[in-house]
Amino acid sequence: MSAYDSDPAVQKVREDVARLHGELTRYGLVIWTGGNVSGRVPGTDLFVIKPSGVSYDDLAPDNMILCTLDGAVVPGSLGSERSPSSDTAAHAYVYRNMPDVGGVVHTHSTYAVAWAARGEEIPCVITGMADEFGGPIPIGPFAIIGDESIGEGIVKTLTGHRSRAVLMQNHGPFTIGVDAKDAVKAAVMVEDVARTVHIAREAGPLIPIPQDKIDSLFNRYQNVYGQSSDARR
Amino acid sequence: MSAYDSDPAVQKVREDVARLHGELTRYGLVIWTGGNVSGRVPGTDLFVIKPSGVSYDDLAPDNMILCTLDGAVVPGSLGSERSPSSDTAAHAYVYRNMPDVGGVVHTHSTYAVAWAARGEEIPCVITGMADEFGGPIPIGPFAIIGDESIGEGIVKTLTGHRSRAVLMQNHGPFTIGVDAKDAVKAAVMVEDVARTVHIAREAGPLIPIPQDKIDSLFNRYQNVYGQSSDARR
Amino acid sequence: MSAYDSDPAVQKVREDVARLHGELTRYGLVIWTGGNVSGRVPGTDLFVIKPSGVSYDDLAPDNMILCTLDGAVVPGSLGSERSPSSDTAAHAYVYRNMPDVGGVVHTHSTYAVAWAARGEEIPCVITGMADEFGGPIPIGPFAIIGDESIGEGIVKTLTGHRSRAVLMQNHGPFTIGVDAKDAVKAAVMVEDVARTVHIAREAGPLIPIPQDKIDSLFNRYQNVYGQSSDARR
Amino acid sequence: MSAYDSDPAVQKVREDVARLHGELTRYGLVIWTGGNVSGRVPGTDLFVIKPSGVSYDDLAPDNMILCTLDGAVVPGSLGSERSPSSDTAAHAYVYRNMPDVGGVVHTHSTYAVAWAARGEEIPCVITGMADEFGGPIPIGPFAIIGDESIGEGIVKTLTGHRSRAVLMQNHGPFTIGVDAKDAVKAAVMVEDVARTVHIAREAGPLIPIPQDKIDSLFNRYQNVYGQSSDARR
Repeated sequence: MSAYDSDPAVQKVREDVARLHGELTRYGLVIWTGGNVSGRVPGTDLFVIKPSGVSYDDLAPDNMILCTLDGAVVPGSLGSERSPSSDTAAHAYVYRNMPDVGGVVHTHSTYAVAWAARGEEIPCVITGMADEFGGPIPIGPFAIIGDESIGEGIVKTLTGHRSRAVLMQNHGPFTIGVDAKDAVKAAVMVEDVARTVHIAREAGPLIPIPQDKIDSLFNRYQNVYGQSSDARR
Repeated sequence: MSAYDSDPAVQKVREDVARLHGELTRYGLVIWTGGNVSGRVPGTDLFVIKPSGVSYDDLAPDNMILCTLDGAVVPGSLGSERSPSSDTAAHAYVYRNMPDVGGVVHTHSTYAVAWAARGEEIPCVITGMADEFGGPIPIGPFAIIGDESIGEGIVKTLTGHRSRAVLMQNHGPFTIGVDAKDAVKAAVMVEDVARTVHIAREAGPLIPIPQDKIDSLFNRYQNVYGQSSDARR
Repeated sequence: MSAYDSDPAVQKVREDVARLHGELTRYGLVIWTGGNVSGRVPGTDLFVIKPSGVSYDDLAPDNMILCTLDGAVVPGSLGSERSPSSDTAAHAYVYRNMPDVGGVVHTHSTYAVAWAARGEEIPCVITGMADEFGGPIPIGPFAIIGDESIGEGIVKTLTGHRSRAVLMQNHGPFTIGVDAKDAVKAAVMVEDVARTVHIAREAGPLIPIPQDKIDSLFNRYQNVYGQSSDARR
Repeated sequence: MSAYDSDPAVQKVREDVARLHGELTRYGLVIWTGGNVSGRVPGTDLFVIKPSGVSYDDLAPDNMILCTLDGAVVPGSLGSERSPSSDTAAHAYVYRNMPDVGGVVHTHSTYAVAWAARGEEIPCVITGMADEFGGPIPIGPFAIIGDESIGEGIVKTLTGHRSRAVLMQNHGPFTIGVDAKDAVKAAVMVEDVARTVHIAREAGPLIPIPQDKIDSLFNRYQNVYGQSSDARR
């Protein structure tokens, strides 16, 4: 048991994170136990993440895992008998170094990984991409699991960048957002954009969108779109 | 409250528009909250459209939004506490300028957007496309959201054209129809056609269909196909 | 009313044909109201076919339509207030001219239509295709709806051919079988084969299968595969 | 009746094998009655496999078929009135010759078959593939059903290889695992890898992953990933 187990703010993030994994399967972004969503507990130095190697059918608020910002499981907390996602260190690094980030998502979604395997950023040639990402989707460095290099690569690439998505070379997309839902939306949109631009380019040259139009679309979408209480979600 | 809230004709369009959004998800044409369907209320200067930024799971007749033909929400009507789709101005422009149009649909469906990103019309090389669209699917101008340019582009491209679908350059498909269902059918069919012709052409040259055969297929389909009370739906 | 409405053999085919349409949607072979399945009533000069322009959600045994072998609706029979599929004449032609055929299916499935739009037969380069079709999937002539030319093209192409599927040029696949289920299986398999061979060839040259191996696979599959009471289904 | 029908170990494998077929349909790896999963009964010379030509909707523990390691059905056992999968001889050969293998799966999944039709191994260019397979996915020889040549080809290719998947030329993937679940996971992953690498390469050259990084990813994943009681599942 942990005192956090009865904290309504922690419980809310557990519920959000568990439920939002369902969006990854709905859009076909993950297979088997791959992929993971995490969410920061607002006002604390904690975040909630998926357990490692557990089937999507079996995810529930109570088996989500509560971690500190150095990636350690909170001892005795709900779900702490399991190991957290093997990508936990990368999520933790992002939360420590990007204080405005409230959610992180990682998948191996097909088309995003395809761009990553070529190390090629996705050019901004469709208005929906200008709306959502404000320009190209950048490539992050090649980095393998086991130390802080994945987290460093994400933070270095996305800091100061409009895009909430980075394609880690030969690996796949990581996305960030103001909360877990926003990061999941970015994961859904980056695969859509990766697929559409891939298919478009198979058949001939693409028409660029002038930079001032991209700027104008991005600014409108960040400020106007959606219901006022739920901007960019 | 608004007097329109108890009008059965308005209620019928609310139900149709809410339900028809389910066809967009069934056929994988939309993700997250993207895409929108609207329907004109027969015999009035009103139309019903999806709210902005609301999940497809949460759409219902009572949260559809009633608008006048200049795109303004009818004050006090059901759902009017929300903002209408950010594409409402484009829908309104179409209804004002194309009096026979009873439904408008917009999506970012993958293959249709791919043709739009190249600014390339879809050639009519399959009989099902001749049936449904009577020739190629045209490209509309590049236009960004915020004034009437999207609506103008749709109306200018589709007026006098057999096709009920236009691919707005770098953006995506807009479709029209005699009612919302007919426009949704066109949105489903244009993605199917965009995908099939894209795939066909990847592997080699396509065999054209002679113009007189296209004409004959189109004329038959508009007049004969389907049950007599439900032609072209 | 018709005396056939109480005939158990007719009723059985109505149930099979209505239910088998569900396999077309399960495998994504059809959209909206496109596609159709028919089945011959064993021991009679009758067949049962889908009504025209009716949603897949609304198909049921009682709205399937009973036709004679010249394609006319049996007056007064269940469902006869509706029009039969606009492809009824083609189905009828096949039943009249190929007495061993007990089922016919037509779809506009994506990859099969793509080969048809190039007028290119599908080469037999995978063992599953050798099993099922015994060689390449042939192309039929360009023919438009409205007379007997579609039916003639199917019969001329498939008579004496191992394949139960033909790709009508610029149009799409028609398949035949010993009964409706067998023809539906062929429709499912031809799309699978069309997709797999298309994708395989995108990336480089394919390895041919020697003719004697194709023959051996086809002969085994027709005679051995499956439970003895259900060969080739 | 057979004494094995009341053996809880046999019953457990029947349940696992029947249920695991649902993963093949969930991920779209099989159509109609194609594909098959088998599992060895631990501590015995028996395995359980799918019946031939039976619909995925109708699979249940009691119609799975119990076989000896020479591929013969155990007389009188549950389900023995049906024929086992036509690939039973290949499964049996693998169990006889690879004593550590506890599960075998065969599908005709689209992208894996596409590589097989070109006889081209899948290069290891994504980290998820290094994790799971430790290098390229190899091609096995062309072999047709009817003798031991398929089993021999699988065993010869996979013995001493890190990969748990082989693409039999012109045919499709066979996968092995420590149990049926592990082999099914490999079948799911090999199609994902085949699709992603195919798509990646369509658009330009791929960045190789250095061999020492592949080794490091593979070793970590085999030893660390997942919950301790369920490594590599």
